[in-house]
Amino acid sequence: MQGKFITLEGIDGAGKTTQLAWLTEILKNHGIDFVVTREPGGTALGEKLRLLLLDRSISMHPETEALLMFAARREHLDQVILPALAEGQWVVSDRFTDASFAYQGGGRKLEYSKLAVLEQWVQADLQPDLTLYFDIPVEIAQQRINQIKHADRFEQEQFDFFQRVRQAYLQRVKQFPDRMYKIDSSQSLVEVKSAVEKALRVLLKHD
Amino acid sequence: MQGKFITLEGIDGAGKTTQLAWLTEILKNHGIDFVVTREPGGTALGEKLRLLLLDRSISMHPETEALLMFAARREHLDQVILPALAEGQWVVSDRFTDASFAYQGGGRKLEYSKLAVLEQWVQADLQPDLTLYFDIPVEIAQQRINQIKHADRFEQEQFDFFQRVRQAYLQRVKQFPDRMYKIDSSQSLVEVKSAVEKALRVLLKHD
Repeated sequence: MQGKFITLEGIDGAGKTTQLAWLTEILKNHGIDFVVTREPGGTALGEKLRLLLLDRSISMHPETEALLMFAARREHLDQVILPALAEGQWVVSDRFTDASFAYQGGGRKLEYSKLAVLEQWVQADLQPDLTLYFDIPVEIAQQRINQIKHADRFEQEQFDFFQRVRQAYLQRVKQFPDRMYKIDSSQSLVEVKSAVEKALRVLLKHD
Repeated sequence: MQGKFITLEGIDGAGKTTQLAWLTEILKNHGIDFVVTREPGGTALGEKLRLLLLDRSISMHPETEALLMFAARREHLDQVILPALAEGQWVVSDRFTDASFAYQGGGRKLEYSKLAVLEQWVQADLQPDLTLYFDIPVEIAQQRINQIKHADRFEQEQFDFFQRVRQAYLQRVKQFPDRMYKIDSSQSLVEVKSAVEKALRVLLKHD
């Protein structure tokens, strides 16, 4: 049986990493075989492209950025995601195509229609079975990031940029209610964990 | 006045580099201001992508390769080609989109229709004013390459691959007779030079 494809989305500082650990804990407890991966990256070539994409010393046109993201994604699908799903493994990816619509579309103001062309080109009709979108006000997210580490090329963007990214994510949740599940990341950790568990329930039931 | 956009195409070993030098000599003699560039590459980011694309130790899906080529091209257009043309400079590029159709299409067997989608996405209706396609039998080209240097990821491909690349180039010459000019590279150097000069005449007349 084909595995399930779960993606995690949200702006930097939304707590995806913490919740990813919790999510895999739940999968383990259900005896599910899975792989964890991330975008951009996930393959040898993809990680090299990730370095270019996050490098603050490199500037590029927003359309170039989108093409590189989808190039890395094409490889990611070919090398990691599709083979795992075909073998019945579940795939958990820290970001996927929703992030392109949010960051390159909302953030960089690239037309969604142009991104949709690349989406169709690269993945045809493949979509995640479940997308957990961790929603958080930009102010809180930025406070969290500033405490942790040196910002990369995306994280160094300004408040307005992340506001647009967040709005784009929220728009997609409305557009794809069947697969996208919004989780309020400003809640307590216990509440967020409980929301993740609840979101997974439907997938686990059908397994 | 908008500058003219000239591209040079051909399989590895067709003698593009020699003829590029000759072509720029002609432009200089006509007092034309021009820039010489190449693909993949031509920008800081593009040259980094070129290293990935030519690296024999990296393998990638043909569609990934095409996306990377067009990502580098998007940046090349934005940083080099379009600004130069807008300022009235002529642009001479060692390879452009015809190479994607020949190598990723003919060579790697990617559908031309998929490449046409990327072409439209990246460059809309922009096309070179003149494309010099240097045609040579694969046998001769390979003899030349083997004498010169260590082969890169494309040059290491087999005879059949280059046969398909050449056939794809020849097909495009038939398809776009108004801008593509086939030059027989197996002729003597004097004859090839004379053909290059002849091909340029129309553009120089209109300048």
